[in-house]
Amino acid sequence: MDATQLRQPRADQARRVADVLRRQLHSYAQVLPTEQQLAAEFAVSRNSVREALALLRDEGLIERGRKVGTRITQPKFEHGLDVLLGLRETLKGHGDVRNEVRVAQLITPPPAVARRLQLRASERAVYVERLRYLGDLPLSLDLTYLAPDIGLEVIARDLEHNDVFALIESVSGDHLESADLALEAITADAHSAATLQVPEGAPLLFLERLTRLSGERPVDLEYIRMRGDRITMRGSLVRTPSEEQS
Amino acid sequence: MDATQLRQPRADQARRVADVLRRQLHSYAQVLPTEQQLAAEFAVSRNSVREALALLRDEGLIERGRKVGTRITQPKFEHGLDVLLGLRETLKGHGDVRNEVRVAQLITPPPAVARRLQLRASERAVYVERLRYLGDLPLSLDLTYLAPDIGLEVIARDLEHNDVFALIESVSGDHLESADLALEAITADAHSAATLQVPEGAPLLFLERLTRLSGERPVDLEYIRMRGDRITMRGSLVRTPSEEQS
Repeated sequence: MDATQLRQPRADQARRVADVLRRQLHSYAQVLPTEQQLAAEFAVSRNSVREALALLRDEGLIERGRKVGTRITQPKFEHGLDVLLGLRETLKGHGDVRNEVRVAQLITPPPAVARRLQLRASERAVYVERLRYLGDLPLSLDLTYLAPDIGLEVIARDLEHNDVFALIESVSGDHLESADLALEAITADAHSAATLQVPEGAPLLFLERLTRLSGERPVDLEYIRMRGDRITMRGSLVRTPSEEQS
Repeated sequence: MDATQLRQPRADQARRVADVLRRQLHSYAQVLPTEQQLAAEFAVSRNSVREALALLRDEGLIERGRKVGTRITQPKFEHGLDVLLGLRETLKGHGDVRNEVRVAQLITPPPAVARRLQLRASERAVYVERLRYLGDLPLSLDLTYLAPDIGLEVIARDLEHNDVFALIESVSGDHLESADLALEAITADAHSAATLQVPEGAPLLFLERLTRLSGERPVDLEYIRMRGDRITMRGSLVRTPSEEQS
């Protein structure tokens, strides 16, 4: 036996194959290689390949047909982690982003939100809730709190066809300079699932993002649920000298 | 009625409250404010608060007792998105990270992996599979492919008690300079769930990360499943001049 043959339980092999394949899907045109080809590429049994493909099918990434082979259902869209781009700007070329505006009004913000936006006591905030579509497909549900001066001008514009980021820059004449973000994985509760048209319990990327104009002025606090089967967050990072270990 | 009162269906209010609370949990000591206090803070009904707390309980973040009020089960740990730190280095101060090494050996890598690591034809890779614990709690399952020269030295070291990042820098005498990463939300299949000690279908953050030494040499390709109930990825970003919109 080849000394570099990896002997693992089938479920471990299947996971290993599925992980590499998941990130490779975009490199195949429409149809994946056959089970036999994949078994050879990964040096695993066809049973392990079959189990790996079942994992990806369960994630909604591929579908398998007796005649047509294994096809990619729909590619995941890549959203930049390291650039301040709205969804519409990000998905330029993939289709049209349309926003179903569920709420857009002035509210009394909860104290935690007021603190993050550095609002004065009793100052209001503008709350916007949008269900965002690419074509007919819901991609994300965005809950947005805006500083009131800018927010009121933003909701007077065409929210259905513009990113909030673009509108903020347009009405403020300033540019968005920095953001703090936190990303979590959660599952869809019944109501969010129905809204995003996924099964209850489907995986969602949950993003909290506080975005600032120049001069470190916080202006936009968002809580975003993205469909896990449709969005990947991508980024690059470079170690800066201050992070060097001694 | 106050014109800034937000009238929404209860499920929408509950989600709005839950989202702000989820990211605020770390700011409470151990016990959350009462339902009544939260209802006042968010200007929603106690029923909406109750539904919001049920959402967070279903995510495993809080537990509710008749006498003790609402308690935080366990804080999520924050993992830096924008720094090249290993898990052990990241969680310094939170407890001891221990790695259960499931595999550590030379393998023939699948072609997709060989390409990412820029290996020569027929060159081997080192494969390492680790289940990572903080104390008794599994946090992540990491599948790692390393360039063979460095990988062979890495697996000769103490993998149980060291981050792979630290070992790479130690054996290479070089420093890790940059990385490309992709983050997705997936749910735990039966086998991954059993390994990470979560229910089947639990949310996981899935991270693919290719890390390079100086001179842009790719050395480490990882596929990491992190428990969604225990890890948040955090980062900051600054818009660089080249991204300015015209």
